[in-house]
Amino acid sequence: MKKYVYSFGDGAAEGTVEMRNELGGKGANLAEMCNLALPVPPGFTITTEVCTEFYKNNCEYPNGLKDQVAEALAKVEKTIGAKLGDAENPLLVSVRSGARVSMPGMMDTVLNLGLNDETVEGLAKKSGNERFAWDSYRRFIQMYSDVVLGVEHYLFEEMIDLIKQDAGVELDTELDVSHLKRLTKEFKAKVEEELGKPFPVDPYEQLWGGIAAVFNSWMSNRAISYRKIHEISDGWGTAVNIQSMVFGNMGDTSATGVAFTRNPSTGAKEFYGEYLVNAQGEDVVAGIRTPQSITIRAKQESGSDLPAMEEVMPQVYQQLVDVYKKLEGHYRDMQDIEFTVQNHKLWMLQTRSGKRTAAAAIKISVDMVDEGLITKDEALCRIDPQSLDQLLHPSLDPKAERNIIAKGLPASPGAASGEVVFTAEDAENAAQINKKVILVRIETSPEDISGMHAAQGILTARGGMTSHAAVVARGMGKPCVSGAGMVKIDYKKKSFMVGAQEIKQGDIITINGSTGEVMLGEIPTIQPNLSGDFAKIMDWADEARSLKIRTNAETPLDAETARKFGAEGIGLCRTEHMFFDAERIISMREMILAETEKGRRTALAKLQPMQKQDFVDIFKIMGDFPVTIRLLDPPLHEFLPHSEEEMAEVAEAAGLSVEKVKSRANALKESNPMLGHRGCRLGITYPEIYEMQAKAIFEAAAETGAKPEIMIPLVFGRKELDILKAVIEKAHAEVGQGVEYLLGTMIELPRAALRAGEIAETAEFFSFGTNDLTQTTFGLSRDDSAGFIDDYKAKGIVEHDPFAVLDQDGVGELVEIASERGRATRPEIKLGICGEHGGNPQSIAFCQKIGLDYVSCSPYRVPIARLAAAQAALAEKQGKLKAA
Amino acid sequence: MKKYVYSFGDGAAEGTVEMRNELGGKGANLAEMCNLALPVPPGFTITTEVCTEFYKNNCEYPNGLKDQVAEALAKVEKTIGAKLGDAENPLLVSVRSGARVSMPGMMDTVLNLGLNDETVEGLAKKSGNERFAWDSYRRFIQMYSDVVLGVEHYLFEEMIDLIKQDAGVELDTELDVSHLKRLTKEFKAKVEEELGKPFPVDPYEQLWGGIAAVFNSWMSNRAISYRKIHEISDGWGTAVNIQSMVFGNMGDTSATGVAFTRNPSTGAKEFYGEYLVNAQGEDVVAGIRTPQSITIRAKQESGSDLPAMEEVMPQVYQQLVDVYKKLEGHYRDMQDIEFTVQNHKLWMLQTRSGKRTAAAAIKISVDMVDEGLITKDEALCRIDPQSLDQLLHPSLDPKAERNIIAKGLPASPGAASGEVVFTAEDAENAAQINKKVILVRIETSPEDISGMHAAQGILTARGGMTSHAAVVARGMGKPCVSGAGMVKIDYKKKSFMVGAQEIKQGDIITINGSTGEVMLGEIPTIQPNLSGDFAKIMDWADEARSLKIRTNAETPLDAETARKFGAEGIGLCRTEHMFFDAERIISMREMILAETEKGRRTALAKLQPMQKQDFVDIFKIMGDFPVTIRLLDPPLHEFLPHSEEEMAEVAEAAGLSVEKVKSRANALKESNPMLGHRGCRLGITYPEIYEMQAKAIFEAAAETGAKPEIMIPLVFGRKELDILKAVIEKAHAEVGQGVEYLLGTMIELPRAALRAGEIAETAEFFSFGTNDLTQTTFGLSRDDSAGFIDDYKAKGIVEHDPFAVLDQDGVGELVEIASERGRATRPEIKLGICGEHGGNPQSIAFCQKIGLDYVSCSPYRVPIARLAAAQAALAEKQGKLKAA
Repeated sequence: MKKYVYSFGDGAAEGTVEMRNELGGKGANLAEMCNLALPVPPGFTITTEVCTEFYKNNCEYPNGLKDQVAEALAKVEKTIGAKLGDAENPLLVSVRSGARVSMPGMMDTVLNLGLNDETVEGLAKKSGNERFAWDSYRRFIQMYSDVVLGVEHYLFEEMIDLIKQDAGVELDTELDVSHLKRLTKEFKAKVEEELGKPFPVDPYEQLWGGIAAVFNSWMSNRAISYRKIHEISDGWGTAVNIQSMVFGNMGDTSATGVAFTRNPSTGAKEFYGEYLVNAQGEDVVAGIRTPQSITIRAKQESGSDLPAMEEVMPQVYQQLVDVYKKLEGHYRDMQDIEFTVQNHKLWMLQTRSGKRTAAAAIKISVDMVDEGLITKDEALCRIDPQSLDQLLHPSLDPKAERNIIAKGLPASPGAASGEVVFTAEDAENAAQINKKVILVRIETSPEDISGMHAAQGILTARGGMTSHAAVVARGMGKPCVSGAGMVKIDYKKKSFMVGAQEIKQGDIITINGSTGEVMLGEIPTIQPNLSGDFAKIMDWADEARSLKIRTNAETPLDAETARKFGAEGIGLCRTEHMFFDAERIISMREMILAETEKGRRTALAKLQPMQKQDFVDIFKIMGDFPVTIRLLDPPLHEFLPHSEEEMAEVAEAAGLSVEKVKSRANALKESNPMLGHRGCRLGITYPEIYEMQAKAIFEAAAETGAKPEIMIPLVFGRKELDILKAVIEKAHAEVGQGVEYLLGTMIELPRAALRAGEIAETAEFFSFGTNDLTQTTFGLSRDDSAGFIDDYKAKGIVEHDPFAVLDQDGVGELVEIASERGRATRPEIKLGICGEHGGNPQSIAFCQKIGLDYVSCSPYRVPIARLAAAQAALAEKQGKLKAA
Repeated sequence: MKKYVYSFGDGAAEGTVEMRNELGGKGANLAEMCNLALPVPPGFTITTEVCTEFYKNNCEYPNGLKDQVAEALAKVEKTIGAKLGDAENPLLVSVRSGARVSMPGMMDTVLNLGLNDETVEGLAKKSGNERFAWDSYRRFIQMYSDVVLGVEHYLFEEMIDLIKQDAGVELDTELDVSHLKRLTKEFKAKVEEELGKPFPVDPYEQLWGGIAAVFNSWMSNRAISYRKIHEISDGWGTAVNIQSMVFGNMGDTSATGVAFTRNPSTGAKEFYGEYLVNAQGEDVVAGIRTPQSITIRAKQESGSDLPAMEEVMPQVYQQLVDVYKKLEGHYRDMQDIEFTVQNHKLWMLQTRSGKRTAAAAIKISVDMVDEGLITKDEALCRIDPQSLDQLLHPSLDPKAERNIIAKGLPASPGAASGEVVFTAEDAENAAQINKKVILVRIETSPEDISGMHAAQGILTARGGMTSHAAVVARGMGKPCVSGAGMVKIDYKKKSFMVGAQEIKQGDIITINGSTGEVMLGEIPTIQPNLSGDFAKIMDWADEARSLKIRTNAETPLDAETARKFGAEGIGLCRTEHMFFDAERIISMREMILAETEKGRRTALAKLQPMQKQDFVDIFKIMGDFPVTIRLLDPPLHEFLPHSEEEMAEVAEAAGLSVEKVKSRANALKESNPMLGHRGCRLGITYPEIYEMQAKAIFEAAAETGAKPEIMIPLVFGRKELDILKAVIEKAHAEVGQGVEYLLGTMIELPRAALRAGEIAETAEFFSFGTNDLTQTTFGLSRDDSAGFIDDYKAKGIVEHDPFAVLDQDGVGELVEIASERGRATRPEIKLGICGEHGGNPQSIAFCQKIGLDYVSCSPYRVPIARLAAAQAALAEKQGKLKAA
């Protein structure tokens, strides 16, 4: 006979913490606490396997389950010295679900199970507290009817309100025994009215009803959706925990509380928690009574008058301190615990690893290494790399009030306030007089770059997490809320509407790029404070990782920021961003409008010294670190103006008719610019552009002693690279004597990945442009997919937005193919990734797995990448150890 | 010592026709004629290897070449009984290039080499014709100076004009010996003036100059470009043929001519050619004298007064007949021959397979099978599948005069005339009163489909060979000229400009979709006549091929046309084209504008019966053949109107404000629609659309007994297919009881190809959508690449437009990967291709190679595909025979 039920309690347990898959998280931890001889109310866990078999066998329980439950229940009854349904000495139990991982959408808890009109009297007698007994009974009917029987909660609330009116009282606690008796009667009548059958009075029927409710909730719509989104297998199933009740609400000798073994906000090594005398667990969080501090220190710090548990129950407190220390020592991590004190006796109801802020995670990890509790490697693995983002940007003062008027996507973290402006120009003008502004656009384009630089933050009405605004803002480390669809912008009126509310240019708003919230007025922010612990963790990460971390940067500011964050080079310097500067855009447009090579060369000659200076600045900042420069990539029409006014301006500057400018702009329009005349295709058609850029690079390198890496975008085979290599070699021969450099290419088209073997005959390095590679592999436009990708996620078609997390199955296979074929041709070829994925921990783990040399990400993601790379390297080491 | 020189003549040769790679086409055929004991002027061939070594070794000849040339020359001198440079009895030779395949851009011919001031006298004496000798001399100087020395041709023409003025004559032939002597003197002086050194008088210097000129011309820009375009390796090199001169211009006993062993226009089995008495080869084609027929029959047919060779030189004629029969019998193919008669003696100068029209190719092949000369398989391989296109469409009467005003791309073959109209609506109105029109658009969109149907032909100013206009026109079998950039259309004025010429609505133009030409006025056309031989070839092809041929068709007319051409099913029925019909577009737009599922369902309910009727019609036409129906694919905005006027119309019909319609149209706009919300992504977001389509299919199938194949477009993994399969199964359960069907998917995204193993768990067939797969694999928009793909071809980056010929290296690898992975999961999976490539012979050969089950192409390409599939199957058989 298979074992379906595991007992625990009385200082021992059949299960252990290792049995999380069978017992669920809660059950495994309850068992473990028993094994540690901690005081846990006795109970038993029905395994997840029962859930799985239940669904396999048409919702029938496996043979033998009933017997095993009966046996385990008998054990509990024996330990407690009470019997389920016994009118004199009733056992009451709680029923809780518990999957491997905590999962919303499932049945939570039924308390006080076992009560009926008879046992309630027994409980009253036994506890000597009639009101307590009847209050427990009415709570049980209410909870069980809602959670197990599906009778809507508000029906009971209405009845409570009515009886309070009758009684002329305001609080539930003011109801006396007679009220409660009446209520239970009315509750039961209501249930019968709603369901057409009476409320179950048989405690065994109640028990199996509770068990069935847990299993049924595993297949609730909410639970299914949650599992889809988080890729949790339906086959895991949930366990059911049945545990004898203990009561914190049996008078002043009883209490209940929750605590953290360290401060979850700051990570400080201090016991931290709240409790309430004469209360049940739910009262602590319900907000009706003010919870009190557990320690005297915390009480003093918060300036509270209410006594601490340390004062009120010094003995039990000491016992609790022993328990928490034992738990933290045993689990070797900060614990989140729940306890109840019943008549001076401490009972532990739950322990689990406590959630914490990024700052706390760092402090706790570092402290625990210092304490000898964990290793540095373990410390590194305890910190979620993504969470570091919280530490690198200003955040809203959590105490400040906020008036949220709209919500978009949390596109670039951090918070900022400023006056609303609607054009890049206005943003720049404001910056010149040191005015803080938020740039509000329907969507941004490369023309807006300087305005984005000048603004404190960016808000867009359209675009997803990887829209232009989002990508650029993240690169700049500026807060950005994108795709706030309810924001209706009217550029002409210089205002936007949110519902009926109009926000005009000059009005102050605050955006929180970490949550996507847009607020009216200025909310105070807190500046980031990168403590010594942060640096320590980063140092350990650098020791552990093998992947190099570079940054995507094209301005001196970005390059400096990235260096400060520990970048070991530039993996992607996009030269086109340099052309949007007001002074340069004129020459750029002149070049585009020229009808002859000669005309283009004239314009390019003006750009060359400026472009050279860009590179000189960057080379100086990056010192001996490698700098990979990508030659012009976007389609030319991105540089042309769109408004009539600007067209006229350009026409005059270029000495052309407005008609001519319009017609050229029109000719450059493309139906699918992403797949159009861009990247190396521009270099093939207008070699003089790449020639100018190469010369600027070589001149800058000659001046600074840098060894640049020149990168050609968007090749689909070797031949394009060969043709452009000749252009670059010619430039090198002319102005770059003595400059050492590498020539490489982006691999960002499926065909380039497939032809990587040939391409590597010419290319000395590959940089995987996984943004474009994702677009082409999926046939999915980054900008256009924002509208339906959420639906795709909700339906489980994609687990993550493939532009946020690298798709290992498809895009990843191409990256692997290209890496293998490239290395087969040229074993020493340098391989890196420079898409948005370069800063995503899961994607970094993939890069480690397939053996890339480096990842490159926006400056503000460099610390995240350093830690993620360390974790990936440690996971690999672990895997190898296991395999060996 | 390596053999670099191969002699021929005197009834024997060192080479054979098999040595085409070493001797070039011309040299190999000259050798072969000698081996057949035909009268060939003796000579020798310098091998292509010399060319290759010449370029390898810094333009130096290999050791031993000079000696071998001297030896071969001595042999010629001995056979002829004359010596190069001998003042009394001079040998004259011709020097010609000759690569493996005929190749423009290379040096063609130098005649009469060996003449100088001394040998010219010897020639005069020997021939007894002083004028002939001096005319030969001045021709030689002129030709050699132009071709070998690079002195521009016009300089000599000017001098001839001057001397004719002096002499008061009009024709060159009227110049007498003294004039010719003066000319040669002046020519030589001119050369010295131009080059700073005298014209070479030493015949050996002349000879080596000629040889060097041939080798140098191999690397001329024109030759290099030609090779790049036609993928001819630079390493092949060219041979040089040196042959003793024979003269057809030595009086009335001499003649020269060219002939085909069968009629190259009709294929009729009749000796067919032209000759001139007392003339050199170039005179026949120069057009100064009217060439005469060789046979009496041809003379009579052409109504000529000039005597036929058969009459004038009956003996030589009979000899020529013997020769041509021997050659055709030997080569087992129609031959194109050149001959010269010198003093009653016949000399053969060249034989090669004759170029022929498609009609002739078919007739000759069928006749030769009947004659027992070749096998059916050989017959099939003799016909260029592409050329069949000529036979399926009306063509311009070759005798008619034409006024070409513009040129675009030959986007869809055939010719048509009609009045110019600029809107689909005008085209439809014209069709209702039986007026013939040419629809002229900047570019077409799906809205124009009905107008394209109504027009005789389509002319667009933008777009490539695979633009919307081109693809749709080819599908309809309508002539189309696309991308005629010089056509400047003004929709408002209803006219277009070509240069300064204005063509107004109502003016008549003619377009030739086979050449891309646009002509003013109506040019008479000739209707296609598919003879019995055509049907015979098609029958043979069907016996030989293993690939099934289906068609892409969505209208009854297309389906019927395709059946007539032998299609064995529909591989791609695009359902969206059915929604552009005037009646339906309203409901379609109503559906798109609806804001709720209910609203959409109301509109879809109106479309369903019409959609069902579409399928009923098509199923009836296709009988037992399979019909693959693709569910809605294009983005919804393609169905919305663009003009203010139309928007207002739609708004009224849908009961919405114009603002609402505009805002919805705006919301649907995408930056890269090709990668946007389309294909199965619509089905995922709006399952009710696919549900309606599935129901229409099942209802139609139930009524007709068809077994439809339902195809889901644009999946990038299995999950989308699973979700939509559920939608289709539900529709089947509701209205399709008893209907058998297959569910499959397009493989048109790189990720789908990579995940084919999983996708095949659900999909029962794959259809490779190689248009989209090419776009995404290359990251290249079909529409936008038109502007630079020619440059890419010219630079050798792509051999062909990848939208015309399947890219086997990249796209092909993905197709292979998907086929393998799909078959691994589901061995019986049906695999086909339905992109434009389905009608391209090279791509069809690839489909055969990787073992697809069928190809699907537009109706007018079905015969081409049948023949190409037969050739591919035969090539495979051949390959297997060789391997065995």
